[in-house]
Amino acid sequence: MTTTSSDHANVRAAELSKRSAEYRRRVNHALAERLPDLREPPQRLHEAMRYAVLGGGKRVRAIMVYAAADAAGCPQVNPDAAACAVELVHSYSLVHDDLPTMDDDDLRRGRPTCHRAFDEATALLAGDALQTLAFEVLSSDPSLGIATELRCRMLEVLSRAIGSQGMAGGQAIDLAATGRSLTLEELEGMHLRKTGALIRASVRLGALCASADEEALERLDAYARCVGLAFQIQDDVLDVEGETAVLGKAAGADSALGKPTYPSVLGLAESRRRALSLHERALARLSGFGASADTLRMLSEYVVTRKR
Amino acid sequence: MTTTSSDHANVRAAELSKRSAEYRRRVNHALAERLPDLREPPQRLHEAMRYAVLGGGKRVRAIMVYAAADAAGCPQVNPDAAACAVELVHSYSLVHDDLPTMDDDDLRRGRPTCHRAFDEATALLAGDALQTLAFEVLSSDPSLGIATELRCRMLEVLSRAIGSQGMAGGQAIDLAATGRSLTLEELEGMHLRKTGALIRASVRLGALCASADEEALERLDAYARCVGLAFQIQDDVLDVEGETAVLGKAAGADSALGKPTYPSVLGLAESRRRALSLHERALARLSGFGASADTLRMLSEYVVTRKR
Repeated sequence: MTTTSSDHANVRAAELSKRSAEYRRRVNHALAERLPDLREPPQRLHEAMRYAVLGGGKRVRAIMVYAAADAAGCPQVNPDAAACAVELVHSYSLVHDDLPTMDDDDLRRGRPTCHRAFDEATALLAGDALQTLAFEVLSSDPSLGIATELRCRMLEVLSRAIGSQGMAGGQAIDLAATGRSLTLEELEGMHLRKTGALIRASVRLGALCASADEEALERLDAYARCVGLAFQIQDDVLDVEGETAVLGKAAGADSALGKPTYPSVLGLAESRRRALSLHERALARLSGFGASADTLRMLSEYVVTRKR
Repeated sequence: MTTTSSDHANVRAAELSKRSAEYRRRVNHALAERLPDLREPPQRLHEAMRYAVLGGGKRVRAIMVYAAADAAGCPQVNPDAAACAVELVHSYSLVHDDLPTMDDDDLRRGRPTCHRAFDEATALLAGDALQTLAFEVLSSDPSLGIATELRCRMLEVLSRAIGSQGMAGGQAIDLAATGRSLTLEELEGMHLRKTGALIRASVRLGALCASADEEALERLDAYARCVGLAFQIQDDVLDVEGETAVLGKAAGADSALGKPTYPSVLGLAESRRRALSLHERALARLSGFGASADTLRMLSEYVVTRKR
């Protein structure tokens, strides 16, 4: 009996699935502990915050934090606070993006969006407070247990990644681009900010938790840049290919809104090829790392082969 | 010729006006330097951020930062970054509060509100990015020049003050209270969060910039708690008494929205008395400080005598 490359891929996928499930369980537990108590006032706001964060989700960004900390190779670290911070930021961005004034989505992670389950004002405030909580956790969570020097650096990394020249800026470019065509360069610039910046920050925060040296930080960052872009390309591909039931959100939503996507600029086949090429470049960046970076390698493969 | 207490009050008012103008000029300059460049993409977002922050404003919170740093008495400190952070947070909260889903205001500081001058989606993102910028400035601004230990503590103070159990929480309680009557205790709890928490944070950040000891921090915090509440009571009083042209926003807006206010709970005369009593308590908290706390003393007086 011979093993094929497809068998190997299946083994890797199963292993990633096991590791991811463990990290997902871990971050979900850490998030539930750090989100405000439902019994504390204002209850409705706290309910909305917990609803928005704890309602499932792949936790790709948190898993990136844990996997980068593993790659940097210090076993004593506790990346929970950093993993929570990136998921809190991601959740805040989804809550605001789903609002009627933005994408006007009714469905998220297979459930009503936050403003549908509550109301617009509560969703707005819940998003605001989730962003704040990310910074509160990073600035004060005792579990992080690292030098304040590193903690400040992590706060700087996160804030630079998600502001007007990062995630929020990407969202603004996305808004302005709706209904008009973009060049590949413009599209890439948008996605490097909109999705890429937080994915890069996730990897960097994980590496900083583990006190990675500057050279390791730079290589991991180059990996994250490739994976972040591949992630967005695959998102666009899935938006064309996918089914609503599998995605947990409305398929074809982006093109229906007249948003520029990789398939609309490059075509579907070339978009897929580009994602695979980014995956190969991501792996090359990890060549100096040993088995400790295997989860990052498998994550990159997952990003370009996922079906949802 | 004898001097009356009214003459003394006029002298103090003139002196505060001079000091405030200097601090206002200073924070406006620091903000203009730290806000994103209009030539950098995404331009429209950056324009909205600058519009929301640089369009005037009394800068009471920034002045509190500078005055608290003065009171704590270390002349070598540079509180600019902290002063910018609290004004960025205040501006973000105004942009989001003015949105149609919240207070639906058309006028702010005598000009169209951010979503009127731009659009709702841009205003939403501008608010989001202003919050982020506050944390970026505090976490990385080199001018702050203090130990990272203190910097982390400042980030913790700011994040706790403005999240779901601080400013954003107060806003949520305010929303839920619209159209129903509150007890005095509930009203006070709402305002301690909604306005009070950021004012307290401003004083604490200023004091931390100047490396104040724990005892000084606690006394300044007690001062700030009184002033924060007095500030809100006076806001409510002015909303009843004021004229739109003087306020720079629509007078009577709160009662028109059915929002509970101090005058609606206590009556106008008792509200004024309560503000004056808080001013006296604030002064008492500063009894251990010398002339270095004079600006804080004059600020407390200003808060309860201001006409806008």
